[in-house]
Amino acid sequence: MEIGITQVLRQLLQMHPQRILTVCGERRRRVHEVADRVARFAGALRQLGVMPDERVGILALNSDRYIESLLAVPWAGGALNPCNVRWTAPEIAYSLNDCDTRVLIVDDHFAPLAAGLRDTVPGLRHLIHAGDGATPQGMRSYEALLAQAQPVADALRKGSDLLGIFYTGGTTGFPKGVLVSHEGFWVSALSLIAEGVIPRQSVMLRSAPMFHMADLAYGYCGLLQQCTHVILPAFHAARVAAAIAAERAEVALFVPTMLQLLLNEPDVERFDFSSLKSLIYAASPVADATVVEVMRRWPRARLTQVYGQTELSPVGTVLHHESHADPVLRRSAGCATHCVELRIADAEGTELPRGQVGEIVARGPNVMQGYWNKPDATAAAFTREGWLRTGDGAYMDETGHVFIVDRIKDMIVTGGENVFSGEVENALATHPAVAMCAVIAIPSDEWGEAVHAVVVLRPSMAVDAAQLIEHCRERIAGYKCPHSVEFRTALPVSGAGKILKRDLRAPFWEGRERRVA
Amino acid sequence: MEIGITQVLRQLLQMHPQRILTVCGERRRRVHEVADRVARFAGALRQLGVMPDERVGILALNSDRYIESLLAVPWAGGALNPCNVRWTAPEIAYSLNDCDTRVLIVDDHFAPLAAGLRDTVPGLRHLIHAGDGATPQGMRSYEALLAQAQPVADALRKGSDLLGIFYTGGTTGFPKGVLVSHEGFWVSALSLIAEGVIPRQSVMLRSAPMFHMADLAYGYCGLLQQCTHVILPAFHAARVAAAIAAERAEVALFVPTMLQLLLNEPDVERFDFSSLKSLIYAASPVADATVVEVMRRWPRARLTQVYGQTELSPVGTVLHHESHADPVLRRSAGCATHCVELRIADAEGTELPRGQVGEIVARGPNVMQGYWNKPDATAAAFTREGWLRTGDGAYMDETGHVFIVDRIKDMIVTGGENVFSGEVENALATHPAVAMCAVIAIPSDEWGEAVHAVVVLRPSMAVDAAQLIEHCRERIAGYKCPHSVEFRTALPVSGAGKILKRDLRAPFWEGRERRVA
Repeated sequence: MEIGITQVLRQLLQMHPQRILTVCGERRRRVHEVADRVARFAGALRQLGVMPDERVGILALNSDRYIESLLAVPWAGGALNPCNVRWTAPEIAYSLNDCDTRVLIVDDHFAPLAAGLRDTVPGLRHLIHAGDGATPQGMRSYEALLAQAQPVADALRKGSDLLGIFYTGGTTGFPKGVLVSHEGFWVSALSLIAEGVIPRQSVMLRSAPMFHMADLAYGYCGLLQQCTHVILPAFHAARVAAAIAAERAEVALFVPTMLQLLLNEPDVERFDFSSLKSLIYAASPVADATVVEVMRRWPRARLTQVYGQTELSPVGTVLHHESHADPVLRRSAGCATHCVELRIADAEGTELPRGQVGEIVARGPNVMQGYWNKPDATAAAFTREGWLRTGDGAYMDETGHVFIVDRIKDMIVTGGENVFSGEVENALATHPAVAMCAVIAIPSDEWGEAVHAVVVLRPSMAVDAAQLIEHCRERIAGYKCPHSVEFRTALPVSGAGKILKRDLRAPFWEGRERRVA
Repeated sequence: MEIGITQVLRQLLQMHPQRILTVCGERRRRVHEVADRVARFAGALRQLGVMPDERVGILALNSDRYIESLLAVPWAGGALNPCNVRWTAPEIAYSLNDCDTRVLIVDDHFAPLAAGLRDTVPGLRHLIHAGDGATPQGMRSYEALLAQAQPVADALRKGSDLLGIFYTGGTTGFPKGVLVSHEGFWVSALSLIAEGVIPRQSVMLRSAPMFHMADLAYGYCGLLQQCTHVILPAFHAARVAAAIAAERAEVALFVPTMLQLLLNEPDVERFDFSSLKSLIYAASPVADATVVEVMRRWPRARLTQVYGQTELSPVGTVLHHESHADPVLRRSAGCATHCVELRIADAEGTELPRGQVGEIVARGPNVMQGYWNKPDATAAAFTREGWLRTGDGAYMDETGHVFIVDRIKDMIVTGGENVFSGEVENALATHPAVAMCAVIAIPSDEWGEAVHAVVVLRPSMAVDAAQLIEHCRERIAGYKCPHSVEFRTALPVSGAGKILKRDLRAPFWEGRERRVA
């Protein structure tokens, strides 16, 4: 399909050259300035030797230069590698090495970390400092590069050309580089716009991390819809509230944790949120109480939940505002969006009846091309008929609403019954002595798998395994209750703060193969 | 791009199996019935030997079976050839022969004409009668075929696979079969939805002819947006008004002539149009007075103009409701939609400055793949850089709004000045004696081309050439006024009622080559 993500910049220039495109601190840039800067920075990248499809990394907090870079890299013909800002230096080095990133753009915040990457990432040729402070030794200045470069013509990357390699995971294995095409990303964003959740020419808040597919897609919708992007370097509840009020933001995307932080922040009440028309939440499960409270606090904002994953470039389902009034539908992730077909399938990829829990599988132009240099993982990611296995366990109701229950790998199949770890964890967490817990599958000769709980107790609190199991028995069905409980002082967590259940499971499964749907 | 137009039927079935999809006279069909009928009719088409990409024609007024056929043909793997219902039998035979259509679906209205096609279209193997009356001798009954056939699985045609061959033209030469792909048509419709003009789950009036790309795209938007389609066999002002009121239609598409007929119909005032939220007009230039009157009469309906052509699958620009308040912008066709990039170019395809008249050229995934079996016409349809030449003359303002002035072939270049035939015709038409007129370019040794008018006078009215030229001189610049005037009793017109200027020009240009931008 003859579409590339840079086309939008020419359209903006054709229709709205004087419109403010980015607001970053005191700096406001109009469309024509951004277009000129993108074409120049692309010229600079070409001078630095960036070849077609060559990866250019970005390791930075949110900024206007981040948005420029996201456009300039494909404009120059390169492919993006936006780095997870929550990762440690070794994890970042792993991803840079893995996909052979030669050029890395960094901001003030990450310049020190980036300087240290040279030893562990031998292929790294150029570090570009896109910050406001002095350019560190051995780095090139983004602004200086841009100032001396000639603007170049768009490389017109499009269709199945590689847009970028987007690293995902950590909780279920080594990070994998997801290959996302121009058309896949574009059609995902256009589908979201077609759902009516990004008002045309609105003021858009950008406080979610720009490396993340959720914000990338949301931000690209904003470009297609001729929005003004109000950029915060990172999420900070009080600053977000102040920015919404000051700039009269009309649309915002948050992950559920951010919504919770906004609700908890006492300062937020002081600010005027009446400009908010559309509030999108995405990227992780949300507590119903949070959604209800958001509706109560900001009744004029239309709420939309989006479920997706990097492998879907990233949009899968949309739960519309109207469905939020229904307490049952509100707990779902909504229905498949225009570009994608979804099914609930068993381990063989066969569609299951409505109401039965299986894996969400997906087909459509937004499905990834595969994992970078991981043919086995790529093969395993698709069913025989070519549907993407999302790894998410869910059921679908009679109206196509998808209810997500667990990651497939975290589901426990015991005596033929599916147990969702989250449900057991919720039951355990209601015990006053439990600080953290994780429920995992361990091998059982009798049941195939058994429910095992790993628990961290609150300081100076005591409870034993039998008491915890009894506590669960009062709340959930017997077969769901932990068969065994283990106490620890801490749980292993990923850079993104997710509990690493694979590490908890590993010793139990040594020498055995766990069959996962 | 892995998207085919039949995917929407599975999505509808997943989410809204019980929703009323089509309303056709007394007949109302739910999504699950239509899905079953489509899969069965596709099975019947396969039994009849329809092979991948093989053309299946449809020659019928609007009906629910027309919509089913539009889905069943690609579901079976075939390609569509929806025939222009205004064409004469020889024109239809030409198009069926040209693209080797083996199966033709006809309704009661066109059965007699179709029966006569057998002699002139030797390749025609099967005539399928999709009507309510008795099946004529030698034809197969659509309902009987469907009843005996097993439902088949979707052939999953997608991406650059051929959706159909859509015949266009007649006014500027032999009809040409436009090759439209699945992804091109799909992305054109999705772009229109992203413009916000098709409310989700609305009641949609289908009174424009379904063979026409304008209604095809509009109707497909309705499928993607889960609408109910209220179908009239053809446009009829009083019946349209009655249907809008009775079914509480919320969205409608009309060509400007239909809007004018609605405004002129005295009966229309009796009906309640308050349900109309979105009124789209497309497919030909509109008089400003018509638009103003529509806004006055139906102030609650949001007006949208769409400009396109079959070669754009078909969407090019969109003029939003908001812009209709501006008397200047209102005369434009709006701005490029998401999927397409537009430019105003000179004869060599080089972009012209804003305000200068040239040809609209287009690039994007919705651009046709070419003309069926016409490599020369296909080559001529694209610029050196691969942009589609639309054949429409226009200028673009500083905000990207496209103002269409004339078909490029109808523009007259005299002494280096562009004269738009429509402007001269408008001046001539204000003379009380003029019934019809056409202004064309004829060769001039002095000026390159000269402005020549062909005029039909009203019965028992008299005026001479000098008087008409003087009449124009009072209204438009001297160089635009006809250099010569010729009187006739009638003008040659196409099946669609357009004046065939090429026939008027031909004798003047015999033995000479006319250089057209």
